[in-house]
Amino acid sequence: MSIDTRETDQLIASDKVEGTAVYNNQDERLGTVERFMVDKFSGQVEYAVMSFGGLFGLGHKHYPLPWQALTYDTDKGGYVVNVTKEQLEGAPSYEGDEDRPAYDRDYGERVYGYYGLTYM
Amino acid sequence: MSIDTRETDQLIASDKVEGTAVYNNQDERLGTVERFMVDKFSGQVEYAVMSFGGLFGLGHKHYPLPWQALTYDTDKGGYVVNVTKEQLEGAPSYEGDEDRPAYDRDYGERVYGYYGLTYM
Repeated sequence: MSIDTRETDQLIASDKVEGTAVYNNQDERLGTVERFMVDKFSGQVEYAVMSFGGLFGLGHKHYPLPWQALTYDTDKGGYVVNVTKEQLEGAPSYEGDEDRPAYDRDYGERVYGYYGLTYM
Repeated sequence: MSIDTRETDQLIASDKVEGTAVYNNQDERLGTVERFMVDKFSGQVEYAVMSFGGLFGLGHKHYPLPWQALTYDTDKGGYVVNVTKEQLEGAPSYEGDEDRPAYDRDYGERVYGYYGLTYM
């Protein structure tokens, strides 16, 4: 399947986003998009979950990023999020199943708030 | 990764939806979800693209289904769309790259209209 069948001017395919690189405004590569988290009822994408690290799965971390915090950059061929590496260190994240968040409203407000956005 | 980390009460993960079966109200299995098509700017899922058939890729067809036409059925472990097999035969679909739609407004109105929905 060519890239053409998975992207149009207005739409993007979920399986195309998965694996796409995420950069910050300092051109540093932060990680890759693992998946979308979508509201089952409204169909609204709430998060792109970014992962990075680590060798052999050690230190592998997941960062839920608010959809609105991501901008697609055609030159970079990836998403750009306005956050420094230092800011990312303090950002909401989790490592594994035992550590996963509930993805409820409280968590939404915390994540969106961290990136200066309002959780609807 | 367990199913728990990819689904919550309110949210569903894109990579969990991909490969999920689609049934109709007659309990017939129509196909599987290939991907979401998401509005790049709003983050709204517009379509779940369902595929089915065929042996060795022959007759393999793609059916864009409006997000609102799908209901998740926990008993079936899949999505249900209110369309008979006969109706599906006349539904908007495409086979391959050379046949792919523009996924523009006209197409949106045609697809949504076919399923009795209004394209926003």
